[in-house]
Amino acid sequence: PQDKLQKNSKGLSDFCIKNIKQAEFGRREIEIAQQEMPGLMILRKRAGGEKPLAGAKVVGCTHITAQTAVLIETLVALGAQCRWAACNIFSTQNAVAAALAEAGIPVFAWRGESEDDFWWCIDKCAAADTWEPNLILDDGGDLTHWLYRKYPSLSKKIKGVVEESVTGVYRLYQLSKMGKLCIPAINVNDSVTKQKFDNLYCCKESILDGLKRTTNVMFGGKQVVVCGYGEVGKGCCAALKALGAIVYVTEVDPICALQACMDGFRVLTLGEVVRQVDIVITCTGNRNVVEREHFDRMKSGCMICNMGHTNTEIDLASLRTAELEWQHLRPHVDQVVWPDGKRVILLAEGRLLNLSCSTVPSFVLSITATTQALALIELYNAPQGRYKKDVYLLPKKMDEYVANLHLPIFEAHLTELTDDQAKYLGVSKYGPFKPNCYRY
Amino acid sequence: PQDKLQKNSKGLSDFCIKNIKQAEFGRREIEIAQQEMPGLMILRKRAGGEKPLAGAKVVGCTHITAQTAVLIETLVALGAQCRWAACNIFSTQNAVAAALAEAGIPVFAWRGESEDDFWWCIDKCAAADTWEPNLILDDGGDLTHWLYRKYPSLSKKIKGVVEESVTGVYRLYQLSKMGKLCIPAINVNDSVTKQKFDNLYCCKESILDGLKRTTNVMFGGKQVVVCGYGEVGKGCCAALKALGAIVYVTEVDPICALQACMDGFRVLTLGEVVRQVDIVITCTGNRNVVEREHFDRMKSGCMICNMGHTNTEIDLASLRTAELEWQHLRPHVDQVVWPDGKRVILLAEGRLLNLSCSTVPSFVLSITATTQALALIELYNAPQGRYKKDVYLLPKKMDEYVANLHLPIFEAHLTELTDDQAKYLGVSKYGPFKPNCYRY
Amino acid sequence: PQDKLQKNSKGLSDFCIKNIKQAEFGRREIEIAQQEMPGLMILRKRAGGEKPLAGAKVVGCTHITAQTAVLIETLVALGAQCRWAACNIFSTQNAVAAALAEAGIPVFAWRGESEDDFWWCIDKCAAADTWEPNLILDDGGDLTHWLYRKYPSLSKKIKGVVEESVTGVYRLYQLSKMGKLCIPAINVNDSVTKQKFDNLYCCKESILDGLKRTTNVMFGGKQVVVCGYGEVGKGCCAALKALGAIVYVTEVDPICALQACMDGFRVLTLGEVVRQVDIVITCTGNRNVVEREHFDRMKSGCMICNMGHTNTEIDLASLRTAELEWQHLRPHVDQVVWPDGKRVILLAEGRLLNLSCSTVPSFVLSITATTQALALIELYNAPQGRYKKDVYLLPKKMDEYVANLHLPIFEAHLTELTDDQAKYLGVSKYGPFKPNCYRY
Amino acid sequence: PQDKLQKNSKGLSDFCIKNIKQAEFGRREIEIAQQEMPGLMILRKRAGGEKPLAGAKVVGCTHITAQTAVLIETLVALGAQCRWAACNIFSTQNAVAAALAEAGIPVFAWRGESEDDFWWCIDKCAAADTWEPNLILDDGGDLTHWLYRKYPSLSKKIKGVVEESVTGVYRLYQLSKMGKLCIPAINVNDSVTKQKFDNLYCCKESILDGLKRTTNVMFGGKQVVVCGYGEVGKGCCAALKALGAIVYVTEVDPICALQACMDGFRVLTLGEVVRQVDIVITCTGNRNVVEREHFDRMKSGCMICNMGHTNTEIDLASLRTAELEWQHLRPHVDQVVWPDGKRVILLAEGRLLNLSCSTVPSFVLSITATTQALALIELYNAPQGRYKKDVYLLPKKMDEYVANLHLPIFEAHLTELTDDQAKYLGVSKYGPFKPNCYRY
Ligand SMILES: NC(=O)c1ccc[n+]([C@@H]2O[C@H](COP(=O)([O-])OP(=O)(O)OC[C@H]3O[C@@H](n4cnc5c(N)ncnc54)[C@H](O)[C@@H]3O)[C@@H](O)[C@H]2O)c1
Ligand SMILES: NC(=O)c1ccc[n+]([C@@H]2O[C@H](COP(=O)([O-])OP(=O)(O)OC[C@H]3O[C@@H](n4cnc5c(N)ncnc54)[C@H](O)[C@@H]3O)[C@@H](O)[C@H]2O)c1
Ligand SMILES: NC(=O)c1ccc[n+]([C@@H]2O[C@H](COP(=O)([O-])OP(=O)(O)OC[C@H]3O[C@@H](n4cnc5c(N)ncnc54)[C@H](O)[C@@H]3O)[C@@H](O)[C@H]2O)c1
Ligand SMILES: NC(=O)c1ccc[n+]([C@@H]2O[C@H](COP(=O)([O-])OP(=O)(O)OC[C@H]3O[C@@H](n4cnc5c(N)ncnc54)[C@H](O)[C@@H]3O)[C@@H](O)[C@H]2O)c1
Repeated sequence: PQDKLQKNSKGLSDFCIKNIKQAEFGRREIEIAQQEMPGLMILRKRAGGEKPLAGAKVVGCTHITAQTAVLIETLVALGAQCRWAACNIFSTQNAVAAALAEAGIPVFAWRGESEDDFWWCIDKCAAADTWEPNLILDDGGDLTHWLYRKYPSLSKKIKGVVEESVTGVYRLYQLSKMGKLCIPAINVNDSVTKQKFDNLYCCKESILDGLKRTTNVMFGGKQVVVCGYGEVGKGCCAALKALGAIVYVTEVDPICALQACMDGFRVLTLGEVVRQVDIVITCTGNRNVVEREHFDRMKSGCMICNMGHTNTEIDLASLRTAELEWQHLRPHVDQVVWPDGKRVILLAEGRLLNLSCSTVPSFVLSITATTQALALIELYNAPQGRYKKDVYLLPKKMDEYVANLHLPIFEAHLTELTDDQAKYLGVSKYGPFKPNCYRY
Repeated sequence: PQDKLQKNSKGLSDFCIKNIKQAEFGRREIEIAQQEMPGLMILRKRAGGEKPLAGAKVVGCTHITAQTAVLIETLVALGAQCRWAACNIFSTQNAVAAALAEAGIPVFAWRGESEDDFWWCIDKCAAADTWEPNLILDDGGDLTHWLYRKYPSLSKKIKGVVEESVTGVYRLYQLSKMGKLCIPAINVNDSVTKQKFDNLYCCKESILDGLKRTTNVMFGGKQVVVCGYGEVGKGCCAALKALGAIVYVTEVDPICALQACMDGFRVLTLGEVVRQVDIVITCTGNRNVVEREHFDRMKSGCMICNMGHTNTEIDLASLRTAELEWQHLRPHVDQVVWPDGKRVILLAEGRLLNLSCSTVPSFVLSITATTQALALIELYNAPQGRYKKDVYLLPKKMDEYVANLHLPIFEAHLTELTDDQAKYLGVSKYGPFKPNCYRY
Repeated sequence: PQDKLQKNSKGLSDFCIKNIKQAEFGRREIEIAQQEMPGLMILRKRAGGEKPLAGAKVVGCTHITAQTAVLIETLVALGAQCRWAACNIFSTQNAVAAALAEAGIPVFAWRGESEDDFWWCIDKCAAADTWEPNLILDDGGDLTHWLYRKYPSLSKKIKGVVEESVTGVYRLYQLSKMGKLCIPAINVNDSVTKQKFDNLYCCKESILDGLKRTTNVMFGGKQVVVCGYGEVGKGCCAALKALGAIVYVTEVDPICALQACMDGFRVLTLGEVVRQVDIVITCTGNRNVVEREHFDRMKSGCMICNMGHTNTEIDLASLRTAELEWQHLRPHVDQVVWPDGKRVILLAEGRLLNLSCSTVPSFVLSITATTQALALIELYNAPQGRYKKDVYLLPKKMDEYVANLHLPIFEAHLTELTDDQAKYLGVSKYGPFKPNCYRY
Repeated sequence: PQDKLQKNSKGLSDFCIKNIKQAEFGRREIEIAQQEMPGLMILRKRAGGEKPLAGAKVVGCTHITAQTAVLIETLVALGAQCRWAACNIFSTQNAVAAALAEAGIPVFAWRGESEDDFWWCIDKCAAADTWEPNLILDDGGDLTHWLYRKYPSLSKKIKGVVEESVTGVYRLYQLSKMGKLCIPAINVNDSVTKQKFDNLYCCKESILDGLKRTTNVMFGGKQVVVCGYGEVGKGCCAALKALGAIVYVTEVDPICALQACMDGFRVLTLGEVVRQVDIVITCTGNRNVVEREHFDRMKSGCMICNMGHTNTEIDLASLRTAELEWQHLRPHVDQVVWPDGKRVILLAEGRLLNLSCSTVPSFVLSITATTQALALIELYNAPQGRYKKDVYLLPKKMDEYVANLHLPIFEAHLTELTDDQAKYLGVSKYGPFKPNCYRY
């Protein structure tokens, strides 16, 4: 797509996507998504008079899906200008990108970018002749770090960055520790509404979907090992067990391991179980969790996939040896064949399964996206000095506000504290209802 | 028992319990409990040479059960002197109290204390001729506050208090806020190993047990409302749903409410569902959650119980009116009859159901008890000045240590981070593995 | 009790029980049970005018619990005379037996009968000076076979037997095959309302209760093997898994084994898993399923219990050897100690755990009991010749009637077929709704 | 496709499919399916020497998927000649049909047939110049009835029909009742290995898959009503509940209704719940279960789909009125819009959701397919007179054999009865293990 000049119906061409002609189909997908994203839609409605993001120039780097499109268009509705790139080379929904381009939003992304394309797209968003971003919305930290390294002076002028992923947040804390963070950052990843909803509930549903769409595997009776029992791992394990799989867990953290035990999963090392399992799932956020020695011991037909942010969890390089044959079976499904005929099925080349091979329910994403929008508004409008060059969590009250915006869809009715009860508990009637250390 | 002088087999009589003759039976219960309390037993073993609590004088006020007996005897094995009272008038296991008395530990507690007895027992532990405590282990804060009010000078000499319950911790934070806390306090209640294990897993199992033992109710198809979807509520809901009950939730906090929705529970107000449910369970830590107007709308046969710390969650006073007849059916089971014949079943007079009417699995309590023991050791041995007059959480590393001590019972095997992975994640190979804000 | 002459308040002494003074307490238990047994209570109401069992003389041999008391008194209300013995030496609720005796029903049973007592009681019911039974209600077949062997001429005059248990039914089919059955028999055990409710749902709830009351074991993370994946096994497995246990299954039948696989349980032989499990549960209806070689391989602390009808499933005799020490820990809890200190916990001496060590929810029993009552009415009133000397199932329509009587308690509302739909399905609007081979 | 003459690579053209060029892709799908269909593959292996179906001419009418292809090719491997049509106009996998055609099997089917096409295809299979079938494999009964009506003389020469579906079996029993059945029929639908596996487990997994692929709906917290609590309904309910949906059930049969209650589902009429639900699922095998009056009361955004065999469960005709606008959203997703803007989402035009919109796990289908193959072999080789003009179930021993063939994939190990145990239970050591009335 880099070489192909496309124009949208208004004659604009400041974008780079697969095919502008898919715009209409993408628009329909965005409309469907809107109906399950109540938080953002209410924010838009309230924008009526005010434009809390007027003058904001948001550069974004996220998965490009119908749901992020709803977020981007919400930011625009709130007054912002946006430029957007993809944070993952496989997850872009081309039609959605087309719909955004058609709507006049400069978007640079397509499914199946090369490594070079990826950075080229980011660069196109980061800097342009007439564009100096003042806010960053990032998922993974690639954009933030590109700006840092390539446009150090520019990056200093930025009002703040909102980061969603474990990895990206980790990189920000590293910078902060080393005293190298030069702008305020809001860590959306550790908001309870992100961590407990997006990571847990979203992965709970999408692990099943991703596996089914790629392999039609039956879950009942299948033996599965899940590496990592954090939020993502908890979601994957719960769903697989609920459908009749026999699930084993690996962990490094004794507390998470004990939770796995109490929840009814055997905790073993990968070496101990890898021989007997039908499916291996990584969700540690770590690297080289599945290595060649594990592959060599898997049984024929074993499937491997990753739910963590990066494709480093599985050591794929170790499979690129002469005696192993790689066969491409279906989109996102590869088969690696051992000399003795043993075959192992690799999904999405080790990239994040659910974003590559399934779609994610809009509702869960609505929670994160609403949090992101609120975080950008907060950073943009905060009085000088409220945020230093540090990493912040959103105030709990905002977390509760985000949750509240998502209750009506369930026809859920909250109880209100009486004055007497509020006093007894020592909290305000209108929240925040819990101390900061509360874990949910 | 106050009036009856009893002597143990060594002729000691510094205790007040129901019946010293039950000591042997109680001892057997303690031995059974030991086998499921690996954390404490390992601590004892390590005490071999050292006595980290030598010189410590611990005054305790907790439920008196086989499990706390294992804790108390562990403290003694580690060098401490102990005096103990019950934090609940119904939960004392008389035989266990007898076994402790027989072992020479001054214990003042029996099942069915009056309100006066309760404070008398606490007073007997707090102060004695030859006894000045220097550490407090409290559950609910009653002991701490008695010491504060009655023995202000004494209480200033205390090295610290370890508090387990929501309520007690809340009272400590109140004191701290008002600048009235005059000793360091360790909040064990908010340790992840307490909150996620004791509150969640323990209540998950014991809500079923408490209801069954008192009423033999069948869970399949029963409609139940659970007030409060915190850790205790989550445990109760999960267990009841797992056994086929239809569960409704009430909440004041939108985040917890949204979790309930996603977990498959309808969130409504008590007024909306109270007419149709068979069982009402409170676990809010709040007061007057079930009021007379709710009782008036319940259907005949409805059962009400409380899993929160205090018996204020249910407004029982409102049922003490002339037209309602109270009938005592079985131990811990009362029936209130309306003039039209409608009857409502009240369990444990609104006190904590599981501690009154069932026993709690030793294993889950082992986790909390090990944490309490470590907290006492920490307070006692901390260098001057490490702990100010404030409320502290245990360092995460100790939480992880506690978890680790409890894995072998499940034959669980932890994975060890490689150097490379530890570096990638930016953590030590030996923990702590998570940032402090991590929610588990 | 055989030697002690007791009289009820009306001066009658034609019964043999533990203690007539417990009658009042037993009566209260019966009243509580009535409230969860809607099927029987409706039958009684309808009896108003008619007495469908007038002239019937029912000799019964079942577990003697509050729930069977409701059944017995329903039979009486419907016109029958009854004499009753216990089918299990441990399961009698003494207070309930007292209440029945007080109500003038000749009952011969107490908890803890010896083998001799057991047969003596049965004999007292089978034949008496002024009593010739014309109907049998049996659970296990012991009564039926006693009558057969001891009173052959009497047994020929009987109108029929209603049998509830797997074992008893099996014995009837054996007799029938050998041409030795001399009366009609109704097999209540294989009624869908018995098999799918009593065996499945009842055991699902009561396995947890039985284990908790005897051992306070925590289920989360425990490894359990369940022998037999029939209805009882399915119920046990479902409940244990739901509370976080890791469950293994043994089976001889490949169809049941495949169901276990699909439901998420590993199917292995007992020899393969016995080393690693914390709990062994038998529910095969078979004998010598757990043998000495298995005991020798269990780990220390392992618990063993039986949910099948007879105590032959576990080969206890094999544990009565010189080198093993038996210790009685609590009621229904024995410990067998190996020379090396290994100890194994045996519950209820291998008899049916839930009937010995817990109570069973009245509601589930109401279904079976209503079916039994209907079967007795059917046998007693059937026109000459409808039932030959064979084993019969109740007509499906009656099964559906029993189910219908139990729906209101759940506020469940049935849909009614339209004429058009009934025609389309080829069934009557009012049932039966399924072919006889339908499995539910 | 009717008008387009296609040839396979061997020059044959006796087939009618979408596109022969997709054969290679279809072949790969068949190969993948083979790996999860152990039962059929073992049957093939054993065919080595013998050809139990030599001379058999099987005319088939089933869903045409990779899995049925494995079955068809197994029949061929066992000696049969086959001609095949689709039993559903939407469920054909075109590539698979191409692969079969390429392999020389006359197949007449494509996705999206018209009503006329459908019967044309069946007719092409039923009769051809050089072809007189002697066995029928049917799913739904359309083929059987076409033969009956159109080729009465031919149909009399047929050795038997193997029928899989509820509907088809019902039609056979009708014929039989009316004395019009002129060939033996084997009812595979009521084999336990069909009913309990295909209907229950298959639908359990595929309801989720079908809904996700078409709508990406999030299940957590969604309110769903499932019409019919038979095997299919039980599977759907279990899966949806397991993923956090709140499920209501409608039923006409009190026994199934009571099961739903005990399993934790509220049983209500459709009229009572239709206002509040997000999803309506029919699986009754009945007609006009969802009618216009229900549609009129649904909330906006409500989704409707059918898991029953025919598309008559939902009264779609009633939605074809002037004031309602139909919009086609995505493949298999239509939206009906009310004048006030309310929109209702209809999936697969009311046809069987999982076969139209998802794929079905090969493993579950392997069980049914193996049963079908064994039934055909049985009918073809049965000695004259064993089967009359009636409807038969497969002998239980064969059911057990089928189950046995599917255990190794789970590494499941059966226990073998000892001689002593077999005698005690009164069964053969090698099965059948259960009486015919056993329900599993
Ligand atoms: N697929 C998605 O939609 C999605 C959504 C959210 C997050 N994520 C990604 O998933 C990953 C996990 O996220 P999370 O929220 O669960 O994080 P988490 O920190 O809660 O959980 C990760 C767990 O893995 C464990 N772990 C680390 N190294 C391990 C090893 N070598 N072996 C076994 N266990 C190990 C850690 O102890 C931790 O408990 C991250 O990379 C995150 O960005 C993916
Ligand atoms: N039974 C036991 O064994 C046991 C064990 C641990 C804790 N507890 C006690 O249980 C109580 C709850 O503990 P927790 O850890 O779940 O606390 P928590 O704070 O996690 O949960 C309490 C929940 O109740 C909600 N709530 C407050 N007032 C409410 C109202 N009026 N209506 C509905 N919801 C309301 C809160 O929002 C909160 O989410 C405490 O009193 C605690 O001491 C009991
Ligand atoms: N505890 C109770 O409340 C209760 C209630 C109902 C029935 N029961 C009793 O429980 C027993 C089982 O009843 P059910 O309805 O489940 O019967 P069932 O026939 O449905 O199940 C028993 C299962 O055990 C399997 N089996 C037989 N021998 C075996 C062996 N050696 N190893 C492994 N598996 C073996 C059989 O194949 C069968 O599937 C019977 O004795 C019955 O009387 C008890
Ligand atoms: N989607 C699939 O993959 C699949 C698989 C197997 C069967 N099926 C089809 O699904 C349908 C159901 O199959 P099954 O095995 O569950 O049959 P079933 O007979 O076990 O269950 C159907 C249930 O619907 C109930 N019912 C009938 N009319 C009703 C009404 N008006 N309202 C509410 N409930 C009503 C019946 O009482 C019965 O319990 C059949 O048409 C069958 O062919 C589909």
